[in-house]
Amino acid sequence: MIVIMQVGATAKQISAVIQRIEEMGLKAHLSEGQERTIIGVVGDDRKAAERDTLGLLEGVERTMRVSHPYKLASREFHPKDTGVPLNGSVVGSKKVVVIAGPCSVESKEQIIETACAVKEAGATALRGGAYKPRSSPYSFQGLGEKGLEYLAEARQVTGLPIVTEVMEPGMVELVSRYADVLQIGARNMQNFPLLNAAGESQRAVLLKRGPANTMEELLMAAEYILARGNSNLMLCERGIRTFETYTRNTFDLNAIPVLKSRTHLPIIADPSHATGKWEYVGAAAKAAIAAGADGLILEVHMEPEKALSDGAQSLRPEKFAELMKQMRRVAEAVDREL
Amino acid sequence: MIVIMQVGATAKQISAVIQRIEEMGLKAHLSEGQERTIIGVVGDDRKAAERDTLGLLEGVERTMRVSHPYKLASREFHPKDTGVPLNGSVVGSKKVVVIAGPCSVESKEQIIETACAVKEAGATALRGGAYKPRSSPYSFQGLGEKGLEYLAEARQVTGLPIVTEVMEPGMVELVSRYADVLQIGARNMQNFPLLNAAGESQRAVLLKRGPANTMEELLMAAEYILARGNSNLMLCERGIRTFETYTRNTFDLNAIPVLKSRTHLPIIADPSHATGKWEYVGAAAKAAIAAGADGLILEVHMEPEKALSDGAQSLRPEKFAELMKQMRRVAEAVDREL
Amino acid sequence: MIVIMQVGATAKQISAVIQRIEEMGLKAHLSEGQERTIIGVVGDDRKAAERDTLGLLEGVERTMRVSHPYKLASREFHPKDTGVPLNGSVVGSKKVVVIAGPCSVESKEQIIETACAVKEAGATALRGGAYKPRSSPYSFQGLGEKGLEYLAEARQVTGLPIVTEVMEPGMVELVSRYADVLQIGARNMQNFPLLNAAGESQRAVLLKRGPANTMEELLMAAEYILARGNSNLMLCERGIRTFETYTRNTFDLNAIPVLKSRTHLPIIADPSHATGKWEYVGAAAKAAIAAGADGLILEVHMEPEKALSDGAQSLRPEKFAELMKQMRRVAEAVDREL
Amino acid sequence: MIVIMQVGATAKQISAVIQRIEEMGLKAHLSEGQERTIIGVVGDDRKAAERDTLGLLEGVERTMRVSHPYKLASREFHPKDTGVPLNGSVVGSKKVVVIAGPCSVESKEQIIETACAVKEAGATALRGGAYKPRSSPYSFQGLGEKGLEYLAEARQVTGLPIVTEVMEPGMVELVSRYADVLQIGARNMQNFPLLNAAGESQRAVLLKRGPANTMEELLMAAEYILARGNSNLMLCERGIRTFETYTRNTFDLNAIPVLKSRTHLPIIADPSHATGKWEYVGAAAKAAIAAGADGLILEVHMEPEKALSDGAQSLRPEKFAELMKQMRRVAEAVDREL
Repeated sequence: MIVIMQVGATAKQISAVIQRIEEMGLKAHLSEGQERTIIGVVGDDRKAAERDTLGLLEGVERTMRVSHPYKLASREFHPKDTGVPLNGSVVGSKKVVVIAGPCSVESKEQIIETACAVKEAGATALRGGAYKPRSSPYSFQGLGEKGLEYLAEARQVTGLPIVTEVMEPGMVELVSRYADVLQIGARNMQNFPLLNAAGESQRAVLLKRGPANTMEELLMAAEYILARGNSNLMLCERGIRTFETYTRNTFDLNAIPVLKSRTHLPIIADPSHATGKWEYVGAAAKAAIAAGADGLILEVHMEPEKALSDGAQSLRPEKFAELMKQMRRVAEAVDREL
Repeated sequence: MIVIMQVGATAKQISAVIQRIEEMGLKAHLSEGQERTIIGVVGDDRKAAERDTLGLLEGVERTMRVSHPYKLASREFHPKDTGVPLNGSVVGSKKVVVIAGPCSVESKEQIIETACAVKEAGATALRGGAYKPRSSPYSFQGLGEKGLEYLAEARQVTGLPIVTEVMEPGMVELVSRYADVLQIGARNMQNFPLLNAAGESQRAVLLKRGPANTMEELLMAAEYILARGNSNLMLCERGIRTFETYTRNTFDLNAIPVLKSRTHLPIIADPSHATGKWEYVGAAAKAAIAAGADGLILEVHMEPEKALSDGAQSLRPEKFAELMKQMRRVAEAVDREL
Repeated sequence: MIVIMQVGATAKQISAVIQRIEEMGLKAHLSEGQERTIIGVVGDDRKAAERDTLGLLEGVERTMRVSHPYKLASREFHPKDTGVPLNGSVVGSKKVVVIAGPCSVESKEQIIETACAVKEAGATALRGGAYKPRSSPYSFQGLGEKGLEYLAEARQVTGLPIVTEVMEPGMVELVSRYADVLQIGARNMQNFPLLNAAGESQRAVLLKRGPANTMEELLMAAEYILARGNSNLMLCERGIRTFETYTRNTFDLNAIPVLKSRTHLPIIADPSHATGKWEYVGAAAKAAIAAGADGLILEVHMEPEKALSDGAQSLRPEKFAELMKQMRRVAEAVDREL
Repeated sequence: MIVIMQVGATAKQISAVIQRIEEMGLKAHLSEGQERTIIGVVGDDRKAAERDTLGLLEGVERTMRVSHPYKLASREFHPKDTGVPLNGSVVGSKKVVVIAGPCSVESKEQIIETACAVKEAGATALRGGAYKPRSSPYSFQGLGEKGLEYLAEARQVTGLPIVTEVMEPGMVELVSRYADVLQIGARNMQNFPLLNAAGESQRAVLLKRGPANTMEELLMAAEYILARGNSNLMLCERGIRTFETYTRNTFDLNAIPVLKSRTHLPIIADPSHATGKWEYVGAAAKAAIAAGADGLILEVHMEPEKALSDGAQSLRPEKFAELMKQMRRVAEAVDREL
């Protein structure tokens, strides 16, 4: 941390800051500039959020953090890529994985039929929500445990592992009984009790970036899960909230290379939510692969015009199969496979 | 809902849309424009999110919603102000209430001392967090149930009711044993299991707007709580996330008059989080009252430079007492009292 | 400026950074931390944007600026409030000024009638656009010089000074012939040739914050005008662009106290644009005064439902007169007058 | 346009709205819903911005636009792709064009050397700014006309056409004497006098999206240029402003497919500004091609660490040459060429 004194701060004020730093068990390092004095605080920035209160001392203009606040998630301290096993592949390797399926599990037939279709087209895993976070209490809220059972049946039929959302800490155990990968949805990215529970589970976790969360906050949320000992963790960029209204979200494509450079964890992209309209999903999916994503999660529905949720952004199976072919070509052009 | 056909949509496409509307048990109402046809869908917009899928039919350009998605929270269907009783006052009446106290409960002495100070200055209720949502797993996470006990002691000493945060549905019962008002924090505004649990509790609820949530989403979150039967509900504007970096959040002052016009629920402002710096809290607090807020929630700490959280935005008791006097003058200038 | 080296940067890399700093004619000041080295650059941050390129040297993680990039606009280097004379008052004094009038000059009768009405209600100056920046080429673009003539006639009738927009550097001379205050609109906040031309004119300037510009960028735009020698300058907060859709813009109320603390220039608020709807203008206007604004600019139209622009956010004269009374009470409650 | 009446609007209020619509020379089309009445306004939405004032009539809740506000830029009314000739290629054809060069022209040697390097690597055109919009008046502002002369010399040496920025309407003629393509920078996207002047020039135009402008506003800015008769127009996505701080801007990748579907004009991507850091430029550039961009504009500098502007986001020539090869492979994977 660096403490920047005001222009014209007095010697007494500077001494008081140094004294307070030393009271904290840290060392102060003084540097006199042309206009003002700055004081370096030598020690670990992370374990002392209270250090921000140095900014309240007299004569201090502001403080600036030097270290990144995350450590376990950081490539700086863990340079080697983390790979997460999924259906015989490794997420975070040369292979680009594809997780596909409907937004919601709507019926046994629907999920099994869709699972077969996406498997046929080459998907690595099956997605489908049994518990659905919905903005409106009047919208379909998911089939609950019944939905989890149907997912398990779809897995039995196809062999595809299951990626499904868990919405509260008290449900982690139940959902873990059925799921291969626990999805933590965008709205729950900073649901800290849920992060802690997921960190303590034995399941792999797919953590989605909140629509208004910075990449740093995403890495800090990952830090919660890693700190509890679960490193089978994938991060997911699914679009952020901006002023633009022609799309449901703004796909932060930059997040893919930036996160790859900052963390060792694999990065998944969700072009369905990132665009919100099926006609743009293909372009965003191909772009994600070109930018270096380790995997994709895509919504596929047999009859989007009858879907109980997210119909507008769901691909029909034949469109999905066609997109798989296109994506394979792009993957090869950047020395990946799919 | 209105369905807007593409320029050049065919009669067959139009018929297909009408047929689908009628299959949904609704009526279609056709209107031929100069450039294109639009089709009104007669029926309740709210209970049929799936209706959005009309946008997927051939020849449809887009659909537009006519009704607001909230109903119980709406002033349209409930014109009279809802008042929430708090310490002998009614939140949502002429009286502007002030909820004050530290960000976190740090010790028994701290919370009792602060409670006495804010009571002396005229506060209506005491705030203080026992469970703290923190971006970093390395930051102070609150004292937990011990913190709730200290809050209860502070209530016993001062008579001030307690406003404190609950972070997960499984904790609603425990926190309700100590708290007078359950606070749902900004990051949990769309934690739907928590909203449901709060909706079923007997306690009043203070629901904070998420930093990247629209007012409409806030009203929909309120709808969850109201739909479960709890109408002792206050909404809170606490700043939203924007590109601006000189402040912690951007105080959406407009939200006060806009929400007052759209809902019958009382509106509280949180100038501490809305600015993030104690030196701007006073200006924002007075502005909130001038704009029609029904109450304020303010962070007060005996020694902000030693606070375990949010020191930078906490007022010292003497500053708070001085601000109370200033706010009283502004309240009177807009025919309120404080 | 501070240069933060990567964890594990080599001595050779550190030397190269120091050498480059010295080549720039500056001094380097080394500080070895627990994890990494940081290097302070002693010298003026402002005149060397190229110094950012230190971030490109090997072993450097990033650079951080210490000084604010503005100086002439800064309260740090110019602690005393700047006052701008307007119609016998001083903007930036105890008196809160009110600039009122229609969005656009539509006819001679309209502007004179409105000028009389706002004068009668106590306005300090008349606003009205002769040149209008419009998102659509199909919208009314203003009356041009004819509009300026009508404004001059309205001044003659009422004695109110004229605040009107100038959109391009080549028009500064012409507009200055008619206007008392040149308004630089939000979309032109970073139209640098226009800022330069306004800086060289003899007229006072009202500079509006761009809808997506930070306060720092506003202060830098002010710096352009001040650097050319014109310090008759007022800054204006008129709402920023966010994700919220219930209002036209998000009124950044915080900007008022924050700018007042950072600059000596007077701060005006524009509640008409900041809300976009006349029914919320009053709340925002009173809030602005409570927060410390030095003045307000408000849209008033004789018949808003027939306005050629911004009808939705314009007040009728009788509403404006009533608001003036309410604002006066709030001004007095914060020891100002109006 | 559709007028949505309030729940409970009276017959008299409805009549008044219909009468006002008819006064405007338009037809009203009534539709009675379950909760409320809606009124369709039959006629062209575009030429009557004042129609928004219908929202001010009593009993009206709000109005909604049906048509897009742009027409000349619209694919709806002009389905065929527009191609812009550039150096023997056509922007908007199978060929993906690459415009490359330094942010600023810094010297004759620099621009000629860079031009040779980018030509060698396969660039279609040369970029370089002679007039630079800079946030700070203390930053390098460009060489002015001297810079234009150097650009012309670089064209003579290499044969590459010149893309360079024009910042004010009064300079269009001068810049047009040297440039092949007039660039309108992001901050000037809504500089309407400049758009008009560019619309009247004989040069092709590259119009950049403003960092906080919606795609619709970009299309409306294009409409200004097209309305003046210049259809040699390319649009450019260069990143938008969001809350994210790890990158200079947020690359709105979605804008590529969305704009391609809404307009017939070619779409260029600017990965240099969209990321702000050279190490992410490659990922973003490949993604843009995968998503369907018709061209790229990229910053290349011989010695980024000595650049007078934008060094951090500039590629060295050898990195650029390597990226060209990678981009070519991605282009082929989506059936384009480069």
